[in-house]
Amino acid sequence: MTEKIYNLAIVGYGGMGSYHAHYILKDHKQVKVYGVYDSKPNRMDAGMKDGYKAFDSLDALLSDEFVDIVLIATPNDVHKEIAIKAIAAGKHVVCEKPVTIHSEELIEIMDTVKNTDQVFMVHQNRRWDEDFLTIKNIYDNRKIGEVFQIESRVHGANGIPGDWRHVKGNGGGMVLDWGVHLLDQLLFMIDSKISSIYANLSFILGNEVDDGFQTIITFENGVRALVEVGTTNFITLPRWYAKGTEGTAVIEDWSNNGKIVIQNRDVVASVPKPIKAGQGLTKTMAPPSGEATTTYPLPEPIELNEHFYDNLLSVIEKRQEPFVKNEEVLRLSKLIEILFESAEKNEIIKVSL
Amino acid sequence: MTEKIYNLAIVGYGGMGSYHAHYILKDHKQVKVYGVYDSKPNRMDAGMKDGYKAFDSLDALLSDEFVDIVLIATPNDVHKEIAIKAIAAGKHVVCEKPVTIHSEELIEIMDTVKNTDQVFMVHQNRRWDEDFLTIKNIYDNRKIGEVFQIESRVHGANGIPGDWRHVKGNGGGMVLDWGVHLLDQLLFMIDSKISSIYANLSFILGNEVDDGFQTIITFENGVRALVEVGTTNFITLPRWYAKGTEGTAVIEDWSNNGKIVIQNRDVVASVPKPIKAGQGLTKTMAPPSGEATTTYPLPEPIELNEHFYDNLLSVIEKRQEPFVKNEEVLRLSKLIEILFESAEKNEIIKVSL
Repeated sequence: MTEKIYNLAIVGYGGMGSYHAHYILKDHKQVKVYGVYDSKPNRMDAGMKDGYKAFDSLDALLSDEFVDIVLIATPNDVHKEIAIKAIAAGKHVVCEKPVTIHSEELIEIMDTVKNTDQVFMVHQNRRWDEDFLTIKNIYDNRKIGEVFQIESRVHGANGIPGDWRHVKGNGGGMVLDWGVHLLDQLLFMIDSKISSIYANLSFILGNEVDDGFQTIITFENGVRALVEVGTTNFITLPRWYAKGTEGTAVIEDWSNNGKIVIQNRDVVASVPKPIKAGQGLTKTMAPPSGEATTTYPLPEPIELNEHFYDNLLSVIEKRQEPFVKNEEVLRLSKLIEILFESAEKNEIIKVSL
Repeated sequence: MTEKIYNLAIVGYGGMGSYHAHYILKDHKQVKVYGVYDSKPNRMDAGMKDGYKAFDSLDALLSDEFVDIVLIATPNDVHKEIAIKAIAAGKHVVCEKPVTIHSEELIEIMDTVKNTDQVFMVHQNRRWDEDFLTIKNIYDNRKIGEVFQIESRVHGANGIPGDWRHVKGNGGGMVLDWGVHLLDQLLFMIDSKISSIYANLSFILGNEVDDGFQTIITFENGVRALVEVGTTNFITLPRWYAKGTEGTAVIEDWSNNGKIVIQNRDVVASVPKPIKAGQGLTKTMAPPSGEATTTYPLPEPIELNEHFYDNLLSVIEKRQEPFVKNEEVLRLSKLIEILFESAEKNEIIKVSL
């Protein structure tokens, strides 16, 4: 049986649009990049040079009957308008993140797609990141006991990209650029409602959008998560740090360097030797004695059994549930709104989300 | 000229009391440990074995005319009562931290000492810690530009000590044990009022007192500080992490391992190469190009020109101001009360402190 080929047209052929073409879909057997549309002539040229059909307009792209799937990779403020038009034109839609700047826009999209046979799916690609799937293994399979504290950080030192991502009206800023990934991972991992949200934003670079943030999210199951993004960090802290009832885990970087340290319950009573720490002795903060803990390598990442576009086709063909559900993305969008509210008011916002 | 010898008597000859005798005052030329009083017979025996006079009672200690200075190293809940008695008996007083559990108790002590010629000074010894004096050098002398974010962590894995420090009524818990040091260092370093306080406490070990905490303190000058103490951290995060307008500093541990990374302003415009990070490319989070930054060793700790007991004698002899001022300790005590309030209510508390 020959598998059906799906033609994908890309709206917005910038960094992310071309990344889908050049990397994610490069060798995909069923999803073929077919055409591009971009409001900037140089990007249309790039699309043609890459061998794709260059559409004169969005409408031309949407009325091409050979287009099955539309990928939206424009600035964030026009996602909704394009998505609704594409759905109306009978296309399936993949949308880059953040899906929309405001949750009401996503609700409009969800209302539009509801009574159709089409699929609208947000490209929360970092659910497939190895570092994330490793910490998810640690969390799900209690590799350090019951996890009660988890810290997720992404530290850069290059500031905000000089494109539309530093413009507020386009949906720029680090909460919407990287926060949306880290928070999505957190919600995907922790099977509990959020009970409160603390957040602060950084504007140290003097842009109109945030150049980083810290948020502390408390879940109803007792897990407390710190999520931090920075673009002025010339030294990085670990990508993941998690504390459980049996030990601690650290994932240092994207290459999954890290370790797990587990306490040996039977020798926990062994009192560590006090150490000289600054101008004082401390037993409390002395390293545990050698036999009190065991160090292990990180476990393997868990496997999500389909990659994003494979899952998309399974959903289109009604063989699978989507890995990225629109209800999940809506919850994420609401979380981000509350995060901004918390930072603006400098208040902890209590919720049941 | 022979220097005057001061006789010091220790009330509470446990871990800290004997630490003063065996370490801090071991070779001090002018302050001699003279006697001890402890309610526990085995500690009285230890004091006698160490060659000190063992007093039958606190009153006996306080009525000994040869005692010049009383060191209070008891559980925290009885500091006030002993301090006020000692001042009434005409003694100078050194008090272990936290000075009192509630700020009103300290105010009572300060009112008592006000119209006397005696000195009451709290042993905030960690102002002399090398790691702290190194970060203070970085902060004061703009080694990474203007510091706007500072993180101070102490991570242990041994739980709360099994003595009175795990009893609420005695003033146990990690906020009062270690928080009082880290917060004191912060207030001593940052010359600005506090504008808001967020805090959460950890009770994961099931004690009646906190086994750790996180607090985020915002200062009126724009500095934001995260202070964290943990006793269930089998892997430690760096002791200090600071971000400035020109770079980043890290101090890993008590041994002052660490570095400073400074951006080279002239090559800041050089765009880093995108890196593959998980399931995506990123320029924002790519490491800066090699020529964009320079790495330096940590600077030397600044010097406080007198150690604690030398400063105490200078204050007694009216030659110097105290390094640890009672008004500073009162502010610290109020901060700790607000920290507890923030954690209990799960609210950010706005102040001008």
